[in-house]
Amino acid sequence: MTDRPTVVKDSVLDALSELSTATACWTLYGMGIRNTYMKGLKPIAPLGLGKRVVGRAFTMRWIPYREDLESDGVAVVRGEGAFRRAIEKLSRRDIFVLDALGDLDSGTLGDILSARVKYRGASAAVVDGAVRDAPYIQEVGLPVFVKGVHPSAGVRTLWPVDFNVPIQCGGVAVIPDDVILADDEGVVVIPAQYAERLSIIGSETEERELFIRQKVEAGYSVFDAYPPTGALIHEFDEWKKSRSDQS
Amino acid sequence: MTDRPTVVKDSVLDALSELSTATACWTLYGMGIRNTYMKGLKPIAPLGLGKRVVGRAFTMRWIPYREDLESDGVAVVRGEGAFRRAIEKLSRRDIFVLDALGDLDSGTLGDILSARVKYRGASAAVVDGAVRDAPYIQEVGLPVFVKGVHPSAGVRTLWPVDFNVPIQCGGVAVIPDDVILADDEGVVVIPAQYAERLSIIGSETEERELFIRQKVEAGYSVFDAYPPTGALIHEFDEWKKSRSDQS
Amino acid sequence: MTDRPTVVKDSVLDALSELSTATACWTLYGMGIRNTYMKGLKPIAPLGLGKRVVGRAFTMRWIPYREDLESDGVAVVRGEGAFRRAIEKLSRRDIFVLDALGDLDSGTLGDILSARVKYRGASAAVVDGAVRDAPYIQEVGLPVFVKGVHPSAGVRTLWPVDFNVPIQCGGVAVIPDDVILADDEGVVVIPAQYAERLSIIGSETEERELFIRQKVEAGYSVFDAYPPTGALIHEFDEWKKSRSDQS
Amino acid sequence: MTDRPTVVKDSVLDALSELSTATACWTLYGMGIRNTYMKGLKPIAPLGLGKRVVGRAFTMRWIPYREDLESDGVAVVRGEGAFRRAIEKLSRRDIFVLDALGDLDSGTLGDILSARVKYRGASAAVVDGAVRDAPYIQEVGLPVFVKGVHPSAGVRTLWPVDFNVPIQCGGVAVIPDDVILADDEGVVVIPAQYAERLSIIGSETEERELFIRQKVEAGYSVFDAYPPTGALIHEFDEWKKSRSDQS
Amino acid sequence: MTDRPTVVKDSVLDALSELSTATACWTLYGMGIRNTYMKGLKPIAPLGLGKRVVGRAFTMRWIPYREDLESDGVAVVRGEGAFRRAIEKLSRRDIFVLDALGDLDSGTLGDILSARVKYRGASAAVVDGAVRDAPYIQEVGLPVFVKGVHPSAGVRTLWPVDFNVPIQCGGVAVIPDDVILADDEGVVVIPAQYAERLSIIGSETEERELFIRQKVEAGYSVFDAYPPTGALIHEFDEWKKSRSDQS
Amino acid sequence: MTDRPTVVKDSVLDALSELSTATACWTLYGMGIRNTYMKGLKPIAPLGLGKRVVGRAFTMRWIPYREDLESDGVAVVRGEGAFRRAIEKLSRRDIFVLDALGDLDSGTLGDILSARVKYRGASAAVVDGAVRDAPYIQEVGLPVFVKGVHPSAGVRTLWPVDFNVPIQCGGVAVIPDDVILADDEGVVVIPAQYAERLSIIGSETEERELFIRQKVEAGYSVFDAYPPTGALIHEFDEWKKSRSDQS
Repeated sequence: MTDRPTVVKDSVLDALSELSTATACWTLYGMGIRNTYMKGLKPIAPLGLGKRVVGRAFTMRWIPYREDLESDGVAVVRGEGAFRRAIEKLSRRDIFVLDALGDLDSGTLGDILSARVKYRGASAAVVDGAVRDAPYIQEVGLPVFVKGVHPSAGVRTLWPVDFNVPIQCGGVAVIPDDVILADDEGVVVIPAQYAERLSIIGSETEERELFIRQKVEAGYSVFDAYPPTGALIHEFDEWKKSRSDQS
Repeated sequence: MTDRPTVVKDSVLDALSELSTATACWTLYGMGIRNTYMKGLKPIAPLGLGKRVVGRAFTMRWIPYREDLESDGVAVVRGEGAFRRAIEKLSRRDIFVLDALGDLDSGTLGDILSARVKYRGASAAVVDGAVRDAPYIQEVGLPVFVKGVHPSAGVRTLWPVDFNVPIQCGGVAVIPDDVILADDEGVVVIPAQYAERLSIIGSETEERELFIRQKVEAGYSVFDAYPPTGALIHEFDEWKKSRSDQS
Repeated sequence: MTDRPTVVKDSVLDALSELSTATACWTLYGMGIRNTYMKGLKPIAPLGLGKRVVGRAFTMRWIPYREDLESDGVAVVRGEGAFRRAIEKLSRRDIFVLDALGDLDSGTLGDILSARVKYRGASAAVVDGAVRDAPYIQEVGLPVFVKGVHPSAGVRTLWPVDFNVPIQCGGVAVIPDDVILADDEGVVVIPAQYAERLSIIGSETEERELFIRQKVEAGYSVFDAYPPTGALIHEFDEWKKSRSDQS
Repeated sequence: MTDRPTVVKDSVLDALSELSTATACWTLYGMGIRNTYMKGLKPIAPLGLGKRVVGRAFTMRWIPYREDLESDGVAVVRGEGAFRRAIEKLSRRDIFVLDALGDLDSGTLGDILSARVKYRGASAAVVDGAVRDAPYIQEVGLPVFVKGVHPSAGVRTLWPVDFNVPIQCGGVAVIPDDVILADDEGVVVIPAQYAERLSIIGSETEERELFIRQKVEAGYSVFDAYPPTGALIHEFDEWKKSRSDQS
Repeated sequence: MTDRPTVVKDSVLDALSELSTATACWTLYGMGIRNTYMKGLKPIAPLGLGKRVVGRAFTMRWIPYREDLESDGVAVVRGEGAFRRAIEKLSRRDIFVLDALGDLDSGTLGDILSARVKYRGASAAVVDGAVRDAPYIQEVGLPVFVKGVHPSAGVRTLWPVDFNVPIQCGGVAVIPDDVILADDEGVVVIPAQYAERLSIIGSETEERELFIRQKVEAGYSVFDAYPPTGALIHEFDEWKKSRSDQS
Repeated sequence: MTDRPTVVKDSVLDALSELSTATACWTLYGMGIRNTYMKGLKPIAPLGLGKRVVGRAFTMRWIPYREDLESDGVAVVRGEGAFRRAIEKLSRRDIFVLDALGDLDSGTLGDILSARVKYRGASAAVVDGAVRDAPYIQEVGLPVFVKGVHPSAGVRTLWPVDFNVPIQCGGVAVIPDDVILADDEGVVVIPAQYAERLSIIGSETEERELFIRQKVEAGYSVFDAYPPTGALIHEFDEWKKSRSDQS
């Protein structure tokens, strides 16, 4: 039984930011973790080629709105305040991950809350649902990944319940402090205890794929170059060595 | 702030079982609670006209399966045992309500677990997702409301996390100990603190609607009879009185 | 330009009731009318093999509910009363066809209104949306074809606007006084001006298919019998003749 | 009963163009109108931050295509000409709103008709369905909000029926002469009789939210600034006053 | 590399018919084959508790209809005749499996072709799409599993291409001569080379689950009985032995 | 019976590249071919106004992944190598068309394979499913039309079976060597035997629509100009003549 590290180190986060989501997702698959890509979530504005966001998951969970939760103050449910309390607990390099039930009938984060999320040092927000004020959130500068947008506030159809509990987001399990890696292809969850190992294996994969793509662009067939065969195996080793000498 | 009763009394459950889900849902709407009907859930076998199940919600929550949750024994997630531990905590007149994320790629309850749920005295199970062995669950005799069926067990795509926490089910909030009322039209959630009041108002509605339907079947127009107008108002009062005298 | 008959004769309705929806739909396709089958509508209770309902379309149209339509009495919208006024205008052998926008979040007809629809002589109701009290509507005995059920009344998310105007229902155009034919396979719309011709051609199709099925069940290959070839052509003519002599 | 103004004044349209759809939608919600945002409609090309279109709804309604509607000239249906007649009736600052049934199998407007819509002074088109020639419509310069695109013309699966009647569009009721407000977040319907009041309240909201966002970006917590508390209340009043003095 | 048996023996088919789809699907999962259950396919009429159909897959593949495929006789496509030729090639204990692309806009099999499929000795048909004449297919007596029904014939939107090639059906790979097992829970594909092994392991599973269910119905907790622990392990061995002595 | 040309000539491809997909789709409709537009496929990056890709279809077909197809080397299925073999068979001006079953749970082409597809001279790839490395495929410079993106490789849920066989893609039939025409509105399939005729008729349509749009932009009503009436008919002829004189 592997114990879970409470917090993935910043240096590992930095190393993971060198990986595309494609490399991370497929390498994790090879490590036995099959379901890591959130389906249907896209950035509200493209990050740009080679740009990624990476951070530690700070999770939050919503249920469908019910009028008595608001008016009767039912004790077991912590209520609207939970959303704001969660935001005020965010730390540097967190990524705020909301299971908003895939609901596209209410926005959750708007421009003001996004501004606060950013101010607290979080790297991004990831919402299985919608945000409001999407054009203005772009102005705020917080990367946000969503299923859609809706101009009305969350309280319309959703009610916040919990934070820092295991949730689903985009059909994927997210445990607090898992690593979230996102780029223009979407969002991948990296189980915390796999983060460091992935940063090492994934980096080798990125290097090998770069070499292969260069060869294919130079005219090698996929049979010869993907993976490298014959003399290309040796050439790859040399190429790698020369690169590490340079760096 | 209204305090929430820990447990709705059995006598109230009995009274609620006199209401159709149509009456319960529409009366709650009139009381200000708009979203109480679980969308897309149906009984695996019809209960029959006028048959209902009623009980107290015992909730359970799942997240998408991830291989490390099983193999690494990640501490924060209580794991597969949570499902069985939940079942062994069920009490008489509970209804076991599972947020299985609407996932139709795995069964959750099968015939054996359903048999145990029934033995412990629960009145029904309600699953936002699928069950397996549906033909055999019918033989067991536990009423089960689902979105679909799937012949493989839950561990394929789902992992149990929590029980007795607020959840969503069929797009509706369910708080532990809310009352669940179900018939062949589907499943309605009754907030615990509204249960008693609903049992009274709903009963009057059922009575009035029976009177109206009899009048409409006898040829009255909807303008005259729905709601009763003119002489019918008096006739309804007499009819109600004669019925209460008889009972 | 073909003028449209105001009313298809009862005798044509009777003749059409001898056709399955499969024969009607496919024969209309051969007559150049391609899109006649309402997608996703099913009877709330099976009619039984060979049972059909047939009648003239009395259409009604809804839009999404908006609070001011109810409270401000906006003049251009005739409002909730439109639904009841429409029902009180139904005639013998009408079929009440509702474009409820495919909305499954509100019931439209319930048991009381269904009782009135039946009392007025209508043969069935067809709803692109949901009904409430479905178990009790069965008791009332009005055949109803729907996309789903929902226990709350229509006013929740829908507002009635018009009746006896061209509408869509189940993805098909319905013009007032078109003929509606329904069985356990679903609902087909027959343009009024094609009704009589269909009743004749369709009847021949039914007869030929019965003959072919008997031959196939007796061991003929589909190449020989479907359509009849060689000696079977003559045999079919004889068989038809003997049947018409008998009747 | 509030009488409906035939036409919302141009000055009110101008004032409304100062509001984001987020402000309009959420303020209307607070005024009791809950369902105003059209789901699933997006501009075919982004308008840009802070850009909006606003105008009076000119509605149009389609039903599924049926071959006899075209060939037999069925009298009750006004036919293909209805689409062109509607376009030739558009006025300055109208927004052409089409209920094309969410159908993505046919385009409705193409580049030529869009050019005419623009020439007649309409501000935009809003289509619950698809348009064709989307790349060329951008060239024409008419803002168009749609669910999708399809390169074939409307007659393939749709037939125009009515104009200037109440319709649904994107799941929302649209009454002729309602105000339509759209930006890159989507399209909101403003009931005509609420337009002026919204322009006033919404403007205050925009101002307050700007103040709050500035404070949050300067480091205030959401508990302190959203809504303003303590000294911030006074500061906000001062800030508002100084702004109105300037303008 | 395991060679594939051309034909699974009848005795293995017989043995497999003793398994529920739940047992088959979950046992195959344990054998490393994860995706065997066809999603969304249901029998057009229930088989009844404990009833199954089993047979060898005879596959067929369709593409969307295109008018030139019919009129121009494009050489590479074998055309409408392919459907009938396939049917005339069916053998005893085949199951006719059609990849009709999940298309619900056309029926494929109708009552006449179903009668021929049955006459040729096939055990059932499985259609990823719709059939027509569903009420009459029930009369014919061929078990048919489908996604839906549609009253018009296949040529409306589909064109047959190939038979006895690998296909998808319900999201599952089907290779010719794989075994198909179906009951009221749905349809499972058993790779031919796993059929015999599954028949042995699955039978043990069925026996063990029967024992467990009896114990659970007698009051054992799932912790004690599922799987059996302590004294129950021995009792299970005795029970198995006594059963095999009896048979 | 029209014989099918083995290969559409390059000069016809060049001529077709002058048509928008809107013109091609609607002209084919007029020629009797109704279903040619692939639903739901979009370029991963816009081509830009007036830019198109055109080429001959090289088809490929996938089925759902099944573990034994990979591990047991089942003879009837040619396996993972089929994908790479297909790529190595692509020729200049081919368009690689993949029926990946609309599956959004696996990428198919990634950046390396796309680079090879491009190197072999293919003009584009069209995938009824997802690709991975979408940001990097843009860098490679191969136009790719897809339903979505997914960062993991194809083997996760898909298995390649066949190439150069008739397939479906986006709900449309594609026969090998059909012509594929794509722009920012999407992808249209042109049956090979219609390609030359379409290039002629379509060109006339483009010319006429340009003339009409200019007139509409100059203020003509759609009744006068679309299609041209009165004096505009003559003006159009003159305009055409002057254009052909110039070219």
